Amino acid sequence: MQEISEAEIDKIHQYWQAINYLSAGQIYLQANPLLRTRLTPDDIKPRLLGHWGTSPGLNLIYVHLNRLIKDTNADILYVCGPGHGAPAIVAHTYLEGTYTELFPEVTMDEKGMLKLFRQFSTPGGIPSHVSAHTPGSINEGGELGYSLMHAFGAVFDNPNLIAACVIGDGEAETGPLAASWNSVAFLNPARDGAVLPILHLNGYKISSPTIFSRMDDTTLSELFKGYGYEVFFVEGEHPHNVHHQLSSTLDIVYDRIRKIQYNARAEGMIHQRKWPMIILRTPKGWTGPKSWNNLPIEGSFRSHQVPLAGVKENPEKLQALEAWMRSYEPEKLFDEHGTLNADLRSLSPVGDKRMSALTYANGGILLKELILPDFKHYGIKVAHPGTIEAESTRNLGKFLREIFTMNAANKNFRLFCPDETNSNRLEAVFQVTDRCFMEKIINTDEKLSPDGRVMEVLSEHLCEGWLEGYLLTGRHGLFPCYEAFVTIIDSMVSQHAKWLKTTQEIPWRKPIASLNYLLTSHVWRQDNNGYSHQGPGFIDTVVNKKSSVIRIYLPPDANTLLSVMDHCLRSKNYVNVVIAGKQPELQWLGMEEAVAHCESGASVWEWAGNDLGDPEVILACAQCH
Amino acid sequence: MQEISEAEIDKIHQYWQAINYLSAGQIYLQANPLLRTRLTPDDIKPRLLGHWGTSPGLNLIYVHLNRLIKDTNADILYVCGPGHGAPAIVAHTYLEGTYTELFPEVTMDEKGMLKLFRQFSTPGGIPSHVSAHTPGSINEGGELGYSLMHAFGAVFDNPNLIAACVIGDGEAETGPLAASWNSVAFLNPARDGAVLPILHLNGYKISSPTIFSRMDDTTLSELFKGYGYEVFFVEGEHPHNVHHQLSSTLDIVYDRIRKIQYNARAEGMIHQRKWPMIILRTPKGWTGPKSWNNLPIEGSFRSHQVPLAGVKENPEKLQALEAWMRSYEPEKLFDEHGTLNADLRSLSPVGDKRMSALTYANGGILLKELILPDFKHYGIKVAHPGTIEAESTRNLGKFLREIFTMNAANKNFRLFCPDETNSNRLEAVFQVTDRCFMEKIINTDEKLSPDGRVMEVLSEHLCEGWLEGYLLTGRHGLFPCYEAFVTIIDSMVSQHAKWLKTTQEIPWRKPIASLNYLLTSHVWRQDNNGYSHQGPGFIDTVVNKKSSVIRIYLPPDANTLLSVMDHCLRSKNYVNVVIAGKQPELQWLGMEEAVAHCESGASVWEWAGNDLGDPEVILACAQCH
Repeated sequence: MQEISEAEIDKIHQYWQAINYLSAGQIYLQANPLLRTRLTPDDIKPRLLGHWGTSPGLNLIYVHLNRLIKDTNADILYVCGPGHGAPAIVAHTYLEGTYTELFPEVTMDEKGMLKLFRQFSTPGGIPSHVSAHTPGSINEGGELGYSLMHAFGAVFDNPNLIAACVIGDGEAETGPLAASWNSVAFLNPARDGAVLPILHLNGYKISSPTIFSRMDDTTLSELFKGYGYEVFFVEGEHPHNVHHQLSSTLDIVYDRIRKIQYNARAEGMIHQRKWPMIILRTPKGWTGPKSWNNLPIEGSFRSHQVPLAGVKENPEKLQALEAWMRSYEPEKLFDEHGTLNADLRSLSPVGDKRMSALTYANGGILLKELILPDFKHYGIKVAHPGTIEAESTRNLGKFLREIFTMNAANKNFRLFCPDETNSNRLEAVFQVTDRCFMEKIINTDEKLSPDGRVMEVLSEHLCEGWLEGYLLTGRHGLFPCYEAFVTIIDSMVSQHAKWLKTTQEIPWRKPIASLNYLLTSHVWRQDNNGYSHQGPGFIDTVVNKKSSVIRIYLPPDANTLLSVMDHCLRSKNYVNVVIAGKQPELQWLGMEEAVAHCESGASVWEWAGNDLGDPEVILACAQCH
Repeated sequence: MQEISEAEIDKIHQYWQAINYLSAGQIYLQANPLLRTRLTPDDIKPRLLGHWGTSPGLNLIYVHLNRLIKDTNADILYVCGPGHGAPAIVAHTYLEGTYTELFPEVTMDEKGMLKLFRQFSTPGGIPSHVSAHTPGSINEGGELGYSLMHAFGAVFDNPNLIAACVIGDGEAETGPLAASWNSVAFLNPARDGAVLPILHLNGYKISSPTIFSRMDDTTLSELFKGYGYEVFFVEGEHPHNVHHQLSSTLDIVYDRIRKIQYNARAEGMIHQRKWPMIILRTPKGWTGPKSWNNLPIEGSFRSHQVPLAGVKENPEKLQALEAWMRSYEPEKLFDEHGTLNADLRSLSPVGDKRMSALTYANGGILLKELILPDFKHYGIKVAHPGTIEAESTRNLGKFLREIFTMNAANKNFRLFCPDETNSNRLEAVFQVTDRCFMEKIINTDEKLSPDGRVMEVLSEHLCEGWLEGYLLTGRHGLFPCYEAFVTIIDSMVSQHAKWLKTTQEIPWRKPIASLNYLLTSHVWRQDNNGYSHQGPGFIDTVVNKKSSVIRIYLPPDANTLLSVMDHCLRSKNYVNVVIAGKQPELQWLGMEEAVAHCESGASVWEWAGNDLGDPEVILACAQCH
């Protein structure tokens, strides 16, 4: 490996300066984007929003990943965990040209730069956090905790992809993120890609210090070694030094990843519990204002959101803001049109190697249709309604088994479940695949291998987050879960539904496969497990959302369940909630009637009553929530 | 410390045998509880429920904690994390006499034992997991993930309490549990009690192996050392050996805890990031049937639920069950009446030192009323409706500040918040208290100390779980949260509401302080943060629950918020959801009108309209969800 030259470091530093400048510009400016004249109060937005604190760190990582991509031609997905990081990431997509390709009015000149600034965190504009609007993103920076599970979901079955996942030290305190570290126990280096976690310790959340930032390096090393990672530290307050450290560290961790993959793929050594990760310690709001009124800003919680609040009304603060923004020397970075200088533009990868243009992050482009057998072949014979019993989900298992078989070559279907596949009576799938597990396998285990396509972990959060990442990168999946416990991910499904609704309004976001739930063990049959296992609340969480995003299915028997599941697995851009029993229950409809019933959505079962007038309410199922 | 004698170990082992016998009995038997005759199919319950797999481990820990209590007179709370562990824990409460004191029909003789067996996991009986019905419990074993946060919540401000928290290796995979390890960063050994986590690795969840059980001891040590724990391993398959190990290990960890507390309380050394914890590796379903049909049961996932399923119909299995149960030699453990032999009875602590009779676990007994200032003193003058603006929550902060001051001596009030106390504009509280933090404090920190009573951690799960534990042990608290992100704990509030509903039907469970939410940053004012911060769904989660448990308040201005919060903080056994704005908003009601409005629950504001007829719908607030 060749040491990076000083000249390269200088250019990387300048690119970082340009991006930091654009990040600040989005937060503060509504005019005079290149500071061609002295700043006046009129140049400042009426309401200052967005978060400066996290931006310089996100920018630093991005620009160095660009260098790595240029050197290696790797496909790298940037998963941005920290909240409100849009000023940083959007600026990169802009300098790379992707933003202008997708939003042509935001041109790569002074006029476009002003549009970029004005649209930021403005009604009718774009959010202050990374979102579906942000090219290259599969993770929203609003509700924290899901970046790392999204990253793992993205690289499952994507052997060439590396997800570089930036985790804020705030987000790292959440439960879902904490559980995500265990994902390496399910990542097979032979068939999956790699995740490079980058834990960014900048010290503070909104006002409080973060737990992880106050741990010393030895403690952090032990902790993450325990989870299966080898930690590489990059730390400092002097940009030049940190540039060198980060650049060489990225080279090292990249080589480690490729070595692990080579060992697994060429040598068959798939058990290597030592994935590289980076811990980056840099000041919060780095390169921003140092202090105000003798109170520190850079390196403190005061840089979390907008430093120098009230700048529009305070001439001294205005001067401080101008000095700060001029410290990046925009006149040396952008040409007379406001376009980034050509020698800096050359630092960014081109085409779909740009992280903002990576096809994996717009999974609909890569989506292959799931191959489905004819579900009618798996139907149950029902001569007369209510004369035989069957377990609807056990029967469905055979259909799912065939899906695994037919899509084995495409490697684009997985089942995600909190260790309930058997309990939910889908065990037929284990005739053709296993549970996935990378830890030691012993002789009392069954249906367990590194190549399994059933992801069982006792965390509804992980099941949901992995599946979301898997779907967002263009694949298919199913999440069977006890009805009572799926409310654990209420807030996650709301965020995913929002993402889908938003993408439906963004033409370049191509449709992805639907997020399919199969909720069994429903409330009405939980007498044995007791009150704690009774909870029909999930339907309340989803039913208040728009029907353009959420669909709810209540198939009353085995044949309707087959028909419904076939429909859901073909659908795009929905959240499909299918609630069906696993216990032996009376069967009502033959296959033809089941299909007709499902096609109409609701129907009158004349044989089930004697009043042939108009019914007041008929639900499409026997389970009336 | 004196080494435990062989005679003592023998007795502990016999007590464990008795408890294991009673655990199995609850799962299988509906007659012949003492096996006075050969087992017949009629003796076996028609439906076999409950989980054997986790029981022997739970029993082992319990009986050894009994020994520790007898030796030290410590107050120890047993927090049982593993699901469906009731056969174990209930059996202990029975042998200790507590169960009979509370449920006199379950007598301590053969007749009572049969009742104990028959009521288990039967309609009209008791659940198969530890629940509100279980004396000594503050944690329900249904939805997994909350045991450790409940344990920490219980010991905050309870300096004499030790919470021994058994965490199953399944539960350990959940996000909420994973986040809980960080709780030591908020546990002050000078003012708080101690938590002794006991991670029980028995190898399997339902069907899959657990991640943690496949890690080697070195890896586990590193991981938990990183989190701030010193790990003590107890491992084995031979009871005699494990009894010795566990007994001496409990002595050691108890001494460590007392030493940490002594150092903190007598020597002022409060920063000691090395709390003891135990990792116990024993076979799943230990002492149960070894195998069936040449497939292993003990030590495998096949012992998770009910081994020898179908025993009622299969004479060979019946024989195996009988052999298993007779292996405990019940005739040597129980006297001719079916009462535990006196020499074994003497192993259990007495009175409220019994873990099943610990007052901390029935917090209503210990509850002191919160001292509240007159909220009217904090009112805002409103001469005419809609003429002035105020920030309702900022004003509430002053009332909360005074509550902290007035209850400082009682140490029974805390605020739990995901780092949003300032953002929610309650910053007046920081005039009299700090944020709590046990890690390094540096000079850029503000309002931070080990003695702070504001618990800020970026985990809604931890805020909720700590607060639940704090309330369940007889204290008071408030959870301010952004409305959009409180849906993260949807499932937790449902479980807590179920707990409250159940306790209202259990006379010996005394009322506890209500769980109070203050939801600010509501959906209608989130234009700046964007779509991801908009989520009114929490109200849907709570509104479908019974009004005997859930109350929802929508105070439209500062004075109504004061009146509502005063009411909520006085109330018992409710979940109170208060949704109020933090932004400057028009004020409507003077204090007298506000009180009248809140007392009536809803009122017609005649000055706000010109139609004086009967209104169709008037909500008690200006925010109509």
